[in-house]
Amino acid sequence: MDYSNFSFTITFRAAVSKARLGRLSTPHGIVETPAFIFCATKAAIKGATPQMMREENTQIILANTYHLMLQPGSDVVAKMGGLHRFMGWDRPMLTDSGGFQIFSLGHGSVAEEVKGRRQSSRPKSLLKINEEGANFKSYIDGKMHLLTPEKSIQVQRDLGADLIVVLDECTPFHVDKSYTERSMHMSHRWAERSFNEFKKGPSGVQALYGITQGGVYPDLRKISADFVNSMPFFGHAVGGSLGANKNQMAEVVEMAMEPLDPSRPVHLLGIGGISDIFYGVTQGIDTFDCVHPTRLARHGGALIPPSVWEEMGEDPKDREHMNLRNARFREDAEPIDKTCECQTCQTMSRSYLHHLLKAGELLAMQALTVHNVHFMNRLLKGIREALALNRLDDEKKKWIA
Amino acid sequence: MDYSNFSFTITFRAAVSKARLGRLSTPHGIVETPAFIFCATKAAIKGATPQMMREENTQIILANTYHLMLQPGSDVVAKMGGLHRFMGWDRPMLTDSGGFQIFSLGHGSVAEEVKGRRQSSRPKSLLKINEEGANFKSYIDGKMHLLTPEKSIQVQRDLGADLIVVLDECTPFHVDKSYTERSMHMSHRWAERSFNEFKKGPSGVQALYGITQGGVYPDLRKISADFVNSMPFFGHAVGGSLGANKNQMAEVVEMAMEPLDPSRPVHLLGIGGISDIFYGVTQGIDTFDCVHPTRLARHGGALIPPSVWEEMGEDPKDREHMNLRNARFREDAEPIDKTCECQTCQTMSRSYLHHLLKAGELLAMQALTVHNVHFMNRLLKGIREALALNRLDDEKKKWIA
Repeated sequence: MDYSNFSFTITFRAAVSKARLGRLSTPHGIVETPAFIFCATKAAIKGATPQMMREENTQIILANTYHLMLQPGSDVVAKMGGLHRFMGWDRPMLTDSGGFQIFSLGHGSVAEEVKGRRQSSRPKSLLKINEEGANFKSYIDGKMHLLTPEKSIQVQRDLGADLIVVLDECTPFHVDKSYTERSMHMSHRWAERSFNEFKKGPSGVQALYGITQGGVYPDLRKISADFVNSMPFFGHAVGGSLGANKNQMAEVVEMAMEPLDPSRPVHLLGIGGISDIFYGVTQGIDTFDCVHPTRLARHGGALIPPSVWEEMGEDPKDREHMNLRNARFREDAEPIDKTCECQTCQTMSRSYLHHLLKAGELLAMQALTVHNVHFMNRLLKGIREALALNRLDDEKKKWIA
Repeated sequence: MDYSNFSFTITFRAAVSKARLGRLSTPHGIVETPAFIFCATKAAIKGATPQMMREENTQIILANTYHLMLQPGSDVVAKMGGLHRFMGWDRPMLTDSGGFQIFSLGHGSVAEEVKGRRQSSRPKSLLKINEEGANFKSYIDGKMHLLTPEKSIQVQRDLGADLIVVLDECTPFHVDKSYTERSMHMSHRWAERSFNEFKKGPSGVQALYGITQGGVYPDLRKISADFVNSMPFFGHAVGGSLGANKNQMAEVVEMAMEPLDPSRPVHLLGIGGISDIFYGVTQGIDTFDCVHPTRLARHGGALIPPSVWEEMGEDPKDREHMNLRNARFREDAEPIDKTCECQTCQTMSRSYLHHLLKAGELLAMQALTVHNVHFMNRLLKGIREALALNRLDDEKKKWIA
């Protein structure tokens, strides 16, 4: 496979864990890993312009194939020169396969986009899954669509992101081992079909990620890792059920990562909690994505390190954000975090942000999005710098109480 | 009166009209006039950060006393160091008296903020007007408030804008000459009370504008102009009814301007149509404000010069904006206006903006706000440059078909 315009170089390996530093090189630039990927679901970060994202040191964003194939349609994006040009983003970009939304969400509401919390039943809009693909109803106009592995790759080719992903079945949370195993094998066949379609495209402009399956079962995780290792994918994503809670997720990530080819970049789908990121990094995860930082911003929440609570004389335990809607901030002249160098913390007080939220001003969402984006980029930069000094545990104490 | 930190210098007078170029100097910088003042109603431009406003060459903004006295309260803004610091805006700023919203709108909905279209009846939230002031109900919590001339000045002192305005009665549109005359005299007494309160404040940090009244009646306009000329105001605003339509507005502006002291800066309240601005300039108006450019943006409208329609092979007559929601833009790879240097036109196509509007993305409002702000600043700059060359009529043809 021609991935000559792409490369993944591991520049440092931690002494005490599987954590590593890497340089993921794409035709649109380099991503220093570990890195966080922000969700520009419908080809836009909700509340921030591409310029703002760059100013807050964002390396890479992703867009969702499911939403874009329905509106404006991947043909429109292709005619407009592809996603990079369409949305004015000139740095690396990833698209997902479209499967997650179809299998787990059913429609495009941001409110339900809680990745990591898989539903226990299928969405009503998912009409049929079989070997060919998945039939679903558009959340926009109710029209029937069929998403096959080939179609997902064709759509992602139209969109033109640097990194693209094979279609897999996202199983509901409760399924048993027998369903998980059958589904895994079908996803492997879909991965082969995805790859065969991928090969037909122009050479060297996109790199394909496979997805490991196997749910919470160690033997299945091993089988799936052997499969993806054997395929000429550029990178891997950890897919399938990650379990019912944080402890099980940690176990599953460990068993999924253990047998994976360590030379390829690995993405952990839909995970963005601070402690989850620290854990993932120690397991060798290179990139993360989650709607949480930007969604939280739109609801008035600002991500903060424990030092901010300590400064306020409060217990920071398990409190990763500050709710600016709270009346306590009405006359608080401090910025969200005086150690933060984002545009918002340079110019706006908690009092002003509280006022903007009370007054229903758009600017509140913009300002908090900018802060949370900067926070995540600062967190991942802190992790990379600490890793290089073998001081990840010390760094973790700065971010988690 | 100590206006030593303020000045208004007329740098050029047109040969064929009352149009003039000026430099309005304030403690927060200079406004080159004629200038447009953007509405940051609740201490925020809807859809643009202060940084964006500066990048699009904005000289001056205004905030609304009515909204801010109710939320967050002028005491909070004062404790936070005043409006400039509160909202992170370091250039000149104006506040209005709060009267317009109380007398004409009744509540704070943006949708009803169509200045220039005065209602023919009083809002239900206005409970009583008498010599003392106006009683009204808060649109937020229904609480009773009394706005007097003294209170308006006190609130505006707390807010701390550079330019502030006396409280006047905004009469309903349909009132007769007798009501207009009685109201004018009360507004003059309110102006004297406003000035007396203003004098009690710290010296040199704010400059006070009087308002000319008199409705559509030439003799009353003359009486009111003589009154405001006789008071030590820094500038004047043209208030009172401007008539029922554009033709009458032109007449009223002319009769209001004719007797006004030509050495003071004059603001035309709530007017922002392109042809109205050209007309106002020829009558000697120095500053304009209107919610139209930013509100239009939030509804998908982009202000454009006639050349854009001509380029598209269409008649530009009476079409001052382009509705990006229109399906014709679905695959239109052009920017809104390829001669525009705003951030939006540099990076986004009509197709992308159409998509953002269809998808309900916040970014659409931000992007169109940036464009419309840039458009207005470019329009006023064009007017200033043409004026200096005595070519205002030629300039007008570039902006109005």
